[in-house]
Amino acid sequence: MAHIFMATNSRNSTNRTARDDEGNQQKHIITVPWRRIERLSLHLNPSPNHHNLSQIEMLICAGRVKKIDVKVAELSSFMRGKHRDIQERVFEYFKSRPELQTPLEISKDEHRELCMRQLVGLVREANIRPFKYVVEDPAKYFAIAEAVGSVDMSLGIKMGVQYSLWGGSVLNLGSKKHRDKYFEGIDSMDYPGCFAMTELHHGSNVQGLQTVATFDPLTDEFIIDTPNDRAIKWWIGNAAVHGKFASVFAKLMLPTHDTKGVSDMGVHAFIVPIRDLRSHEPLPGVEIHDCGHKVGLNGVDNGALKFRSVRIPRDNLLNRFGDVSRDGNYTSSLPSISKRFGATLGELVGGRVGLAYSSNGVLKIAATIAIRYSLLRQQFGPPKQPEISILDYQSHQHKLMPMLASTYAFHFATLHLVDKYCEMKKSHDEELVGDVHALSAGLKAYVTSYTAKSLSICRESCGGHGYAAVNRFGSLRNDHDIFQTFEGDNTVLLQQVAIDLLKQYKQKFRGGSLAVTWSYLKESMNTYLSQPNPVTSRWEGEDHLRDPNFQLDAFRYRTSRLLQSVASRLQKHSKALGGFGAWNRCLNHLLTLAESHVESVILEIFIEAVRSCSDEGSKVALKLVCDLYALDRIWNDIGTYRNVDYVAPNKAKAIHKLTEYLSFQVRNVAKELVDAFDLPDYVIRAPIGLQAADEAYSQYTQQVGF
Amino acid sequence: MAHIFMATNSRNSTNRTARDDEGNQQKHIITVPWRRIERLSLHLNPSPNHHNLSQIEMLICAGRVKKIDVKVAELSSFMRGKHRDIQERVFEYFKSRPELQTPLEISKDEHRELCMRQLVGLVREANIRPFKYVVEDPAKYFAIAEAVGSVDMSLGIKMGVQYSLWGGSVLNLGSKKHRDKYFEGIDSMDYPGCFAMTELHHGSNVQGLQTVATFDPLTDEFIIDTPNDRAIKWWIGNAAVHGKFASVFAKLMLPTHDTKGVSDMGVHAFIVPIRDLRSHEPLPGVEIHDCGHKVGLNGVDNGALKFRSVRIPRDNLLNRFGDVSRDGNYTSSLPSISKRFGATLGELVGGRVGLAYSSNGVLKIAATIAIRYSLLRQQFGPPKQPEISILDYQSHQHKLMPMLASTYAFHFATLHLVDKYCEMKKSHDEELVGDVHALSAGLKAYVTSYTAKSLSICRESCGGHGYAAVNRFGSLRNDHDIFQTFEGDNTVLLQQVAIDLLKQYKQKFRGGSLAVTWSYLKESMNTYLSQPNPVTSRWEGEDHLRDPNFQLDAFRYRTSRLLQSVASRLQKHSKALGGFGAWNRCLNHLLTLAESHVESVILEIFIEAVRSCSDEGSKVALKLVCDLYALDRIWNDIGTYRNVDYVAPNKAKAIHKLTEYLSFQVRNVAKELVDAFDLPDYVIRAPIGLQAADEAYSQYTQQVGF
Repeated sequence: MAHIFMATNSRNSTNRTARDDEGNQQKHIITVPWRRIERLSLHLNPSPNHHNLSQIEMLICAGRVKKIDVKVAELSSFMRGKHRDIQERVFEYFKSRPELQTPLEISKDEHRELCMRQLVGLVREANIRPFKYVVEDPAKYFAIAEAVGSVDMSLGIKMGVQYSLWGGSVLNLGSKKHRDKYFEGIDSMDYPGCFAMTELHHGSNVQGLQTVATFDPLTDEFIIDTPNDRAIKWWIGNAAVHGKFASVFAKLMLPTHDTKGVSDMGVHAFIVPIRDLRSHEPLPGVEIHDCGHKVGLNGVDNGALKFRSVRIPRDNLLNRFGDVSRDGNYTSSLPSISKRFGATLGELVGGRVGLAYSSNGVLKIAATIAIRYSLLRQQFGPPKQPEISILDYQSHQHKLMPMLASTYAFHFATLHLVDKYCEMKKSHDEELVGDVHALSAGLKAYVTSYTAKSLSICRESCGGHGYAAVNRFGSLRNDHDIFQTFEGDNTVLLQQVAIDLLKQYKQKFRGGSLAVTWSYLKESMNTYLSQPNPVTSRWEGEDHLRDPNFQLDAFRYRTSRLLQSVASRLQKHSKALGGFGAWNRCLNHLLTLAESHVESVILEIFIEAVRSCSDEGSKVALKLVCDLYALDRIWNDIGTYRNVDYVAPNKAKAIHKLTEYLSFQVRNVAKELVDAFDLPDYVIRAPIGLQAADEAYSQYTQQVGF
Repeated sequence: MAHIFMATNSRNSTNRTARDDEGNQQKHIITVPWRRIERLSLHLNPSPNHHNLSQIEMLICAGRVKKIDVKVAELSSFMRGKHRDIQERVFEYFKSRPELQTPLEISKDEHRELCMRQLVGLVREANIRPFKYVVEDPAKYFAIAEAVGSVDMSLGIKMGVQYSLWGGSVLNLGSKKHRDKYFEGIDSMDYPGCFAMTELHHGSNVQGLQTVATFDPLTDEFIIDTPNDRAIKWWIGNAAVHGKFASVFAKLMLPTHDTKGVSDMGVHAFIVPIRDLRSHEPLPGVEIHDCGHKVGLNGVDNGALKFRSVRIPRDNLLNRFGDVSRDGNYTSSLPSISKRFGATLGELVGGRVGLAYSSNGVLKIAATIAIRYSLLRQQFGPPKQPEISILDYQSHQHKLMPMLASTYAFHFATLHLVDKYCEMKKSHDEELVGDVHALSAGLKAYVTSYTAKSLSICRESCGGHGYAAVNRFGSLRNDHDIFQTFEGDNTVLLQQVAIDLLKQYKQKFRGGSLAVTWSYLKESMNTYLSQPNPVTSRWEGEDHLRDPNFQLDAFRYRTSRLLQSVASRLQKHSKALGGFGAWNRCLNHLLTLAESHVESVILEIFIEAVRSCSDEGSKVALKLVCDLYALDRIWNDIGTYRNVDYVAPNKAKAIHKLTEYLSFQVRNVAKELVDAFDLPDYVIRAPIGLQAADEAYSQYTQQVGF
């Protein structure tokens, strides 16, 4: 929590009035907080107060302040995605089947079975079939995933494993023969499957996978082998209990006629049956173990797979990007191992899009619970007055209001990402592919890290009642936690963003065109790298600070400077350290650059969303949270801005002051802002977070038996 | 993650060499990271590298760098507390009774029973009797609590409820008659009991409790009543299942002869039997419900208590600070409700001391697991070289090394607090009481918040394997989470620190003496409030930055400025807003002040600990982590220092650079530094965190069944 010293000139004049005879010196410098001090330290009823109460109330209690007129229905309708209808079908189905609701206490094994029943029920009973949307209409698929995740995140992930990972690998990496053979079984849940990429020793470094698939031209088969324990497929969802097939990622080895004997063609994916379709017993050569309890998501049956000379037909190679002929010859439309590997991984980017989107869904639930409870909960208050809501405390606003602003920011950013992804799936435009790849990496990393931290803050801000399991922060945090790691570790993904930025930087100096998301950099490289303007760096007016142009300029200036300076540092260090050493030496810097860029992109999308809103009340509210998002981020990195005199000392203070003021203003419409997320009580479930605030405590006491 | 822009002058000259003909321009500005970019984005084998490998290894791999010579045994012996022997008895006992070990999966009800068996076993079988140490030798009590908490934190908390809260209230708030009657039963676990303070609607604001105890002179009894559902005693440990008694905090009401009928004498504590000693049934008028599942600590049976005209003998008033005679007259050695209430709460400060101490115990376990795994785990590496440990990445050092430094810092600070607390319990010196009160509030808040955040970082830094329940981050986080809330919400406790600082500030200007912990402020108020020295603000040398005098000066300067400026702001705002409004308007500022002060105190104790270490190797290592602690904190708030020109821009950069370098140096002795915590594998338990690194993976694979 950074804090700029408040300058003061009153030191000498005021302190000197402090004397021992307290009775006669009611106005010396430290008298003022005295009543509060006594209250807090001795829990005393203070002496009668002399100040103007209406003024206090005006400043700390929301009721009397002229509020922004937000109509929840209007704002909600502006926010609502195209696929709200199917989400409501999901909610209705599970609401109608209470026996499918996950109880607070459930054993791992029961949870896995329940989760399977939930998924089968969704598909076969409610007839919601996510698989067809994976390719056809991904936005609809993501909407289902978000809704299902809010029922039980284990179900969301199990569905993702089945349709996006296992199913997606068949659709995206295979060819027509695979779709014809597997589509129906995957869609109907007759063929539950796994996505077997990660190994015990290799997660992020997929290139380092050691499982091998050797072609045997005599039998026209591939032989799948786990060469050592380090290469055991680990954390494979659906493997421990339910999976019948797995997409196994392995190095394709082809026999050669030279002394080497085999040639490594790089990592490819293969469909490997792992359990008998009838008996459900593991097939010969397939050793399966249960990875056991996890921090969360215990409804998903993650397992470990070890292969010993498991033979599969040649047809089981998912051959979209590379194929092997009957006589063992390799063909591909792509010229190199690297291109094929890039294309293969590129097809899996949908998982990241879905995680960024669902992560914001989790944040919406948590923020709603925490904010509703903080409005309801009262503790302490002005002397002789009723206690006030804890959300009326500046410290509580500081914890929750920038978080609420970020939730809105991420809402528009992740919707934008989903749109871009859908566009890409249709057009296959190469530039768009690169754009979506970097944007999904950046947003997945940034949003999931932010949500993870926020879940803890939400729990803390609800105190003891936030610790009741029924109020959900524990399970939300435990289930969401791994979002930061799977589908690409966040630290690695941010490096991919940095890599892309450096590519763009290179591109610029070659005169090439820039991808859409980075187009601001083209301008910035010319504009921003001069010294900051000594005049604007002193502008402190609210109009200026709330001007989107100032905010965007500040974000982009920072990104551009970081990009330019890290490029220069990489060059400098590479002489002594080589490429790898230089990269590592600048790693913190590179991660900061990536985060700064993602923040810039989010702000740009947010500003555009505000502009496009036609309902006046909603627009004012959105502009308010957008400004808070922007200024809070600038304030969080004020050291950077100060160090290059992009902002003068007094401007820094003005930004801080305005951030606190905007937090207070957002607090005044906080109820409306969370109501506009339009999450029904069935989805919220936490007694302290239900929409009808007056029922919250009684729900809570009834729930324990009173 | 703040980041100062790296200034560069090479922009114009170097960029211009970038051209389209890449082949001929191998040295332009962005060629350098290219190999790394290709590796990461395409997972390609890069082209052969031309740089000097021994230099890379020197800079990123620890092996070749001249290491500080730390002898684990020496450092460990310096760190070891006086009561290691009894901790080892705890470990030995539970190691010898594997059936008492808490399994990964256990239902709430089974967990509670197991936890009770653990506690009874400890007391009756291992004959470790914590109760006698609560007053006699609190340091020994805290040592037992830390050890027991590392077996299962539920057990640690259940023990705390029984001996520190329930038992402690009898010993500290009662008189000889209570000790005589209850000591034996509490000590032996025949009288399991509760500490019934918190109500559904009142946690932090204890003064607002609404439960009443009305004296009935006819029967010489108190009548305990819950006037409404808001006053139900909530979250009461030991209440749901095991408790037979409760210390109930209630407003003491005495009959008067005027029209009011009764007079409120303020909150007092009463011993209320809640279950029949033989049948264990709830007693008449006592309604007990189970608060149900919690985020963690499910081995503790928290319950809710509602009283309907429950009659208890007059003798059950815990009467140390106030008593009622047979004829209903009130007597007290203390003159006012506030003094009595302050004295009552003051006796309960031991709980905070224990939490700060145990929280650091949790942090030691988590940091050990995360650091050992990060040394073991390898992922990516320089071209054509083996993969490197993930702790060799700058970003990973950034996550874990300042955390390790803080763990050391908190070790010495919490030991110091325990010593002060023991001294206070002996001397009852009033100044010391105030000192311990503020220090325990500050350290409890600061350390538990830091640990909570760090547990998440530890999980993330271990990636997927950190998500396996067996590796413990989930249960450590879930169990520890509430440390931030109970025994005083951290945000409220930090305000108590701020209050104390303002009192000291007032004191200074009255010419009074300052409490020991704050003595630096006396000097600071004179020295630090002048403008920063423009010469020293430019000093950038390593010797200067690692000079404890510079570090202490920077910390204290910040605290002093914050104190002075907040006092001035409080004065300013109070005119319009009154005391309460002004306090709220400055709340973020006040919390920053409190944190800044706590950090200053921790640094001072750490510097003293380094000075007092006589083993040369240990001293060098401790100095290193102490410097990292200090500079990392300064860097985290660099905006503040920059804004008043306490440090010049280049000095800010030098601090950042040195922080990264010190993190790298600490990484080189990280194994020794965690080994020196001397936590046996029995306590660590996580397969990925065991001392013999080469066994970690095989332990892990065996554990799932391979």
